[in-house]
Amino acid sequence: MSTAIEPVDPDVRAHVQSRRDEFLDGLKEWLRIPSISADPAHAGEVAHSAEWLAYRLRAAGFPTVEVWPTAGLPAVYAEWPSGDDGAPTVVLYGHHDVQPVDPVELWDSAPFEPFVRDKGQVYFHLLGMSAHLVTTGRTSPAVNLKLVIEGEEESGSPSFAQLLRERRDRLECDVVVVSDTGVFSRYAISVCVGMRGLMRGEISLRGPGGDLHSGSFGGAVANPTTVLAHLIAALHDDDGHVTLPGFYDDVAPLSDRERELFGALPFDEVTWLRDAQSTATHGEEGFTTLERVWARPTAEVNGIAGGYADSGFKTIVPSQANAKVSFRLVANQTAAAVPAQAAAWLEQRRADGTIPPGIEVELVFEETGVRPCLTPLDHPALQSVTRAMERAFESRVLYTREGGSGPQADLAEILDVPVVFLGVGLPDDRIHAPNEKADVEFLLRGAEAAAYLWSDLAATWDR
Amino acid sequence: MSTAIEPVDPDVRAHVQSRRDEFLDGLKEWLRIPSISADPAHAGEVAHSAEWLAYRLRAAGFPTVEVWPTAGLPAVYAEWPSGDDGAPTVVLYGHHDVQPVDPVELWDSAPFEPFVRDKGQVYFHLLGMSAHLVTTGRTSPAVNLKLVIEGEEESGSPSFAQLLRERRDRLECDVVVVSDTGVFSRYAISVCVGMRGLMRGEISLRGPGGDLHSGSFGGAVANPTTVLAHLIAALHDDDGHVTLPGFYDDVAPLSDRERELFGALPFDEVTWLRDAQSTATHGEEGFTTLERVWARPTAEVNGIAGGYADSGFKTIVPSQANAKVSFRLVANQTAAAVPAQAAAWLEQRRADGTIPPGIEVELVFEETGVRPCLTPLDHPALQSVTRAMERAFESRVLYTREGGSGPQADLAEILDVPVVFLGVGLPDDRIHAPNEKADVEFLLRGAEAAAYLWSDLAATWDR
Repeated sequence: MSTAIEPVDPDVRAHVQSRRDEFLDGLKEWLRIPSISADPAHAGEVAHSAEWLAYRLRAAGFPTVEVWPTAGLPAVYAEWPSGDDGAPTVVLYGHHDVQPVDPVELWDSAPFEPFVRDKGQVYFHLLGMSAHLVTTGRTSPAVNLKLVIEGEEESGSPSFAQLLRERRDRLECDVVVVSDTGVFSRYAISVCVGMRGLMRGEISLRGPGGDLHSGSFGGAVANPTTVLAHLIAALHDDDGHVTLPGFYDDVAPLSDRERELFGALPFDEVTWLRDAQSTATHGEEGFTTLERVWARPTAEVNGIAGGYADSGFKTIVPSQANAKVSFRLVANQTAAAVPAQAAAWLEQRRADGTIPPGIEVELVFEETGVRPCLTPLDHPALQSVTRAMERAFESRVLYTREGGSGPQADLAEILDVPVVFLGVGLPDDRIHAPNEKADVEFLLRGAEAAAYLWSDLAATWDR
Repeated sequence: MSTAIEPVDPDVRAHVQSRRDEFLDGLKEWLRIPSISADPAHAGEVAHSAEWLAYRLRAAGFPTVEVWPTAGLPAVYAEWPSGDDGAPTVVLYGHHDVQPVDPVELWDSAPFEPFVRDKGQVYFHLLGMSAHLVTTGRTSPAVNLKLVIEGEEESGSPSFAQLLRERRDRLECDVVVVSDTGVFSRYAISVCVGMRGLMRGEISLRGPGGDLHSGSFGGAVANPTTVLAHLIAALHDDDGHVTLPGFYDDVAPLSDRERELFGALPFDEVTWLRDAQSTATHGEEGFTTLERVWARPTAEVNGIAGGYADSGFKTIVPSQANAKVSFRLVANQTAAAVPAQAAAWLEQRRADGTIPPGIEVELVFEETGVRPCLTPLDHPALQSVTRAMERAFESRVLYTREGGSGPQADLAEILDVPVVFLGVGLPDDRIHAPNEKADVEFLLRGAEAAAYLWSDLAATWDR
């Protein structure tokens, strides 16, 4: 990364800019299809969105375009072989569904009107492919390209892993490129190198067989809400470390280089806190805010319930209490390890008296969590993405991660290949909130970066 | 209490037994009026119940009978002066409303059918008065009697304190007799000497301005559900003592005599646990189960809520969390002292870091709680009640308390007199649960005890 940035290819830029209006018109048309995957009433719109995209991909020259049904909403698949011997095969992942737009009244303009949004990160690839072909004089891409554009990402990709398993043969590849992430800021162009994994569970406590009169019984039987509180309080130590035995054993420690690169990002705590709607940061001792959300695992209580907490009072000893807890995981943790660690932790709590006689505790996890993913900084595909982005944005790129979890890790696991991220979302997109927008210029730079990427991958890939 | 039990007055018993059928017919008629105070749809029935009782009181000879309207449901007031110079004045408290009968399908017989219930403890006093007059040859009672029978006890007596203040002049008296409690068991006749007080509050925590994506922000901001758990966990020490500073300062310690009397009760843990629908007792170190529920103050979490705890998962850092907490109080604590103690406790939690930056905590208490009440064992009115009960039941009586809280303490406070309890409810009444019943024989013994009590109070009262 100490070599000079390659100069912009003026032909690529000229081609992309010449198609700006056409690109925007097409994107706006697509955006007006409200493909809200989380709302069953919009299932028809998601199907419409898939057909629209399939039509455009065929028009763009993809020789194979298919709409793939799933147990849920359809995905779009498109394939364009390179024709070159030894060309690497790339699966390009994106999604064509969008978030629900409630509350509509908070949007400055009507939703799905000409605002460029999530779908922009899929759509710029059509322009990128056009630039790649026109400027290289090719009739097919330099890589074997396989697009898979799912329709349920915004509702948690419930059918995606199954789809990948079923279509594994068709999706065989050397690397996955994900276009769904963002840059650190408008002025700090970056490439994402990892996402956190996730394991979600529920802890349920049962005390008395029914709610009891707190006058008649209060003080003489264990209260499940109080015991739950003790358990939650025991989930972290005084330094904010998660207390599950073995939880950190597999955690890839941050290298000095990674910490240095995180530190090079122009992190502004005031801005971060504004986005977090918070007045202070708080977390694991010894780590910065970015390290906490990107590179450290967490145990987060997502909700608690027990007894009567609505308006007024019911003076009861509650019969039951429960909490939802999610664990964010980082490389090289596995979601599958968490349930056993949590069970061992619970045994410790029984042994140390945190769980008194009279309270039954049950701990249930989801069947499969989400794996964390991390691209090593020296990975050749990441070098290609880095060069493509630096060239398109005429700027050194830095490296970020995402704290969230997504189907990207399924791609890595099921297809058994590395995943790299080519994303140009802007942080002021206010992900999943009203007035989401992406800067058109960033989408055009994304198209340029894609054009460079296919050539770079083909030229540098070492089979 | 070492003197011999006075023998039954055969005339009293004969009179009471001779009126058994008449008593039961009247009670059944009254029970069939579903005076459910908690259900606004039954307001008319509560008014009907009040008018019915007023009619019966007039028929029984009370020269003054009034239905007193309140801000809520009506109370019944009746007065019968003794005519004797220097006769003590007694306010007799009871209630004529009943609990909602849901779930109806769990009742072995249709509710309000001829099952003797709560109202029986008011109704036996009419028979008691009749026995008192007939067997003493009097035309008015030996004490100045003032009945006040409220209509909202089962829904928390929301209007009762106000009614007492408004009618304070009419209710001037020397002692209050409450007929609303029970004996320890069918085979261990007892007199209640106290009830716990109550102060209810809510603790509310605010963290981020809205629910946050736990991937993007989890691990780097304080989570209000976790902080609430730490606060709840800090509410008791390892021995189960409440940690509010000064909480125990005014607590009347149990005397050796009181502990001895509690110990004399035939307490059966297996039965108690069955009633508590629990598999184990748990509470403050150094106290028995009865001491814990009758003579020790508590802090009980009645409910918790925060974030998303329903089916499925929402991986959020919740914006808010709250808990309802109620403090049961014993003599000589005051409900008014609790908010300041809790505020001081909260300051300690801020100081010791339990509440991290970024979390706002608000603690709100109800305006007025309920005071605890305790009749000293050597109080003359309690001696009268003891003698009357021992005579009626031909048995030594033991002393109990109630762990609950009720308007009885308002009577003591607003009328500024001692309160004694004359109650014959049986513990297998399963208070507030389906199949509630009271043994008719116990109600008849209650009538006998009332007949003795008025004479005893008049004879022994030292003005």
